[in-house]
Amino acid sequence: MKETTLRLTVTDKSTDLSRPQLNMEKLRQTVERIFEDVRQNGDEAVRKYTALYDGVDISQPLVTERELAEARQAVPEELKQAIETAYRNIDTFHRAQFTARMPEVETAPGVYCWQEARPIEKVGLYVPGGSAPLFSTVLMLGIPARIAGSKEVVLFTPPGKDGRIHPAVLYAAERTGISRIYKAGGIQAIAAMTYGTESVPKVYKIFGPGNQYVTAAKQYALQLGTAIDMPAGPSELMVVADETARPDFVAADLLSQAEHGPDSQVICLSDSQEFLRQVAAELERQLKDLPRKDIAVQSLENAKLIYVDNPADTIRIVNEYAPEHLILATGRNDFYIENVLNAGSVFIGNYTPESAGDYASGTNHTLPTNGYAKAYGGVSTESFVKRISFQRITPEGLQNIGKAIEILATAEGLQAHQNAVSIRLKAISNE
Amino acid sequence: MKETTLRLTVTDKSTDLSRPQLNMEKLRQTVERIFEDVRQNGDEAVRKYTALYDGVDISQPLVTERELAEARQAVPEELKQAIETAYRNIDTFHRAQFTARMPEVETAPGVYCWQEARPIEKVGLYVPGGSAPLFSTVLMLGIPARIAGSKEVVLFTPPGKDGRIHPAVLYAAERTGISRIYKAGGIQAIAAMTYGTESVPKVYKIFGPGNQYVTAAKQYALQLGTAIDMPAGPSELMVVADETARPDFVAADLLSQAEHGPDSQVICLSDSQEFLRQVAAELERQLKDLPRKDIAVQSLENAKLIYVDNPADTIRIVNEYAPEHLILATGRNDFYIENVLNAGSVFIGNYTPESAGDYASGTNHTLPTNGYAKAYGGVSTESFVKRISFQRITPEGLQNIGKAIEILATAEGLQAHQNAVSIRLKAISNE
Repeated sequence: MKETTLRLTVTDKSTDLSRPQLNMEKLRQTVERIFEDVRQNGDEAVRKYTALYDGVDISQPLVTERELAEARQAVPEELKQAIETAYRNIDTFHRAQFTARMPEVETAPGVYCWQEARPIEKVGLYVPGGSAPLFSTVLMLGIPARIAGSKEVVLFTPPGKDGRIHPAVLYAAERTGISRIYKAGGIQAIAAMTYGTESVPKVYKIFGPGNQYVTAAKQYALQLGTAIDMPAGPSELMVVADETARPDFVAADLLSQAEHGPDSQVICLSDSQEFLRQVAAELERQLKDLPRKDIAVQSLENAKLIYVDNPADTIRIVNEYAPEHLILATGRNDFYIENVLNAGSVFIGNYTPESAGDYASGTNHTLPTNGYAKAYGGVSTESFVKRISFQRITPEGLQNIGKAIEILATAEGLQAHQNAVSIRLKAISNE
Repeated sequence: MKETTLRLTVTDKSTDLSRPQLNMEKLRQTVERIFEDVRQNGDEAVRKYTALYDGVDISQPLVTERELAEARQAVPEELKQAIETAYRNIDTFHRAQFTARMPEVETAPGVYCWQEARPIEKVGLYVPGGSAPLFSTVLMLGIPARIAGSKEVVLFTPPGKDGRIHPAVLYAAERTGISRIYKAGGIQAIAAMTYGTESVPKVYKIFGPGNQYVTAAKQYALQLGTAIDMPAGPSELMVVADETARPDFVAADLLSQAEHGPDSQVICLSDSQEFLRQVAAELERQLKDLPRKDIAVQSLENAKLIYVDNPADTIRIVNEYAPEHLILATGRNDFYIENVLNAGSVFIGNYTPESAGDYASGTNHTLPTNGYAKAYGGVSTESFVKRISFQRITPEGLQNIGKAIEILATAEGLQAHQNAVSIRLKAISNE
């Protein structure tokens, strides 16, 4: 058997962690062409590109009740129960994180202000096809949409060469109450949700991961006025570990991220060079038996094992890198919890693997990559609503703040803004 | 004196309320050119474009302590007090709407999950120049940034021909604790915040209104990976009124929006044709004395007075249009409050003018226009943070959900994800 040689070496805190620049521009012409075709020709264009890129002719893209029934039959009982466990925990966490209405505040006597969440009525979910049937992503997007109360939730996912969708994806979609499931993927799927077609409703926001074509298409949809969950890049894991951690656990976590794709990035920071060398040895050892070993090896070529001798530099590197996933396995996790500013999701302690959050602990796995954790959080129930402000002012309330408004409006040179107050104050004093 | 003839007629519920398509593409080449120049030449490029577009040579763009002291002297006491009233109410509302940490949830026994808000460290605020000194926008962006805890808050605003910034803008910026104020506007300002220069820090998110150049520049910044508050379009007001409302108040509100710009859109819906005719007459009457009458007249050319005879159709039109501002002045406001899905900010009752929310009631005035209220809320304290998920799982917790994770990971074909759990479960059972 051929020996895998990773040649992973321990480096120091000056290690360059800058990410390769994603260039969406090169796909732009393709994206624009397909969008324009879908805008003009609707379903027929979607069918054309599905035949071209997925190699299958789909005359009826909408999944039927019969296909759903078959999926229910095909999914093993054990998997159904595991999905149920995941569903329950995701549902619990996404309900707890959400408050539909803030209490009314009387900002000044007689001035009542509050905010209420209202669902985004029409949302589109995208679930990639390819080698793995990502039914977990269906749950991660479908459950918060349901809690938020979105009325129309549509899901697009590319069909296999046999024209079918993996039964677990259909089962998870039905379980989360998704109204319509379409057998289409790629740029044409995003275009269909952006413009609407004969059979697809135009949605207001599009969610979900995807390859570079889907990502470029979502960026274009954003420019056209459709909201998106967040920009996307390759998946990432950063582990901060010291000698209280176990190198075999850490290596298993790094591999779980590395198997996602050749461009996944995994990084381990430690104040022990010996620990990092043990992680490197464990990586070699555990890698051997992985079905997705070829992918993991490519990803590990970009892996970093970095020796940093103090917590201050460690947290600086974490915040500068802004990892999608951060595992803390040290004797001073509280210090890192308190000081982490930029990360998508944080996993604390030796028994909290990142894959728990990918599937079943309850947190969301749709998270900011590529440094976007500096400005974006992951998908949450909040992502499926918008907050509307409400205010009600009594005549006394307007008397309390009216003078200030008149002065401010006048100072900004906006006389009609002042008049809207003055005409009311005059009416009140004439009463 | 020349008579103003508005020729406003009452139309019916079939009235076309579709907005003109904004086309950012035509400005794209200019935006790309200036961005590239700023990326390569930094401060010198910013100075060049300020000379070109603002007609003034600014060798030192950073506002000095001396300029701030002069502004403190120049702002009249009455205006300072009005700013203080606005500050207090905005601060109260933006603190009340914000919860830094959700309670920890035990999603399954031994599985602890929670979310915490962390500030976006570096944010850039843009305040337009032009005819009105928009110090109110300084407060609306600066106060939530301060509450959120953003460490570095920079503000850009274009200088006047005399190279100065209006003292009220400087005063408001200092009052909200903004760290640095730059005398630059337009595309070059957005580019400077996107890339950073010798004197400007690269920020993670850019906020604030602007003309079409600024809007196109923000869209481009978004594509380059810098977050923005929201896409922008012309300002809008929709009023729903019946005979319990006062036509003079409604006309004053419509004019307060119309004076913003020639492309502002104002719409009044009513179940009384007579009421709408009275509003039209009041518009004519009140328009006469406005300093910004020429702007308002242009805007009113696109105004709509729409007769709708029932609440169901009325709320359907409201939700389909998704107005930035919505005034409810009817005998059944509760029905509309309950059923409004798409609006930026809602003003309830006869004594709640929109200008209250523009300045001093406490709600934010940076709101979604152009139908974006279907997917976006206005700026809030939440806009200056991102939510990080945290989870901590005990050995018992992992035993509770581990099996489900193993099954789910295997079904998705991700063996290394399963291994990260299995290796731990094995360690636990060996202890």
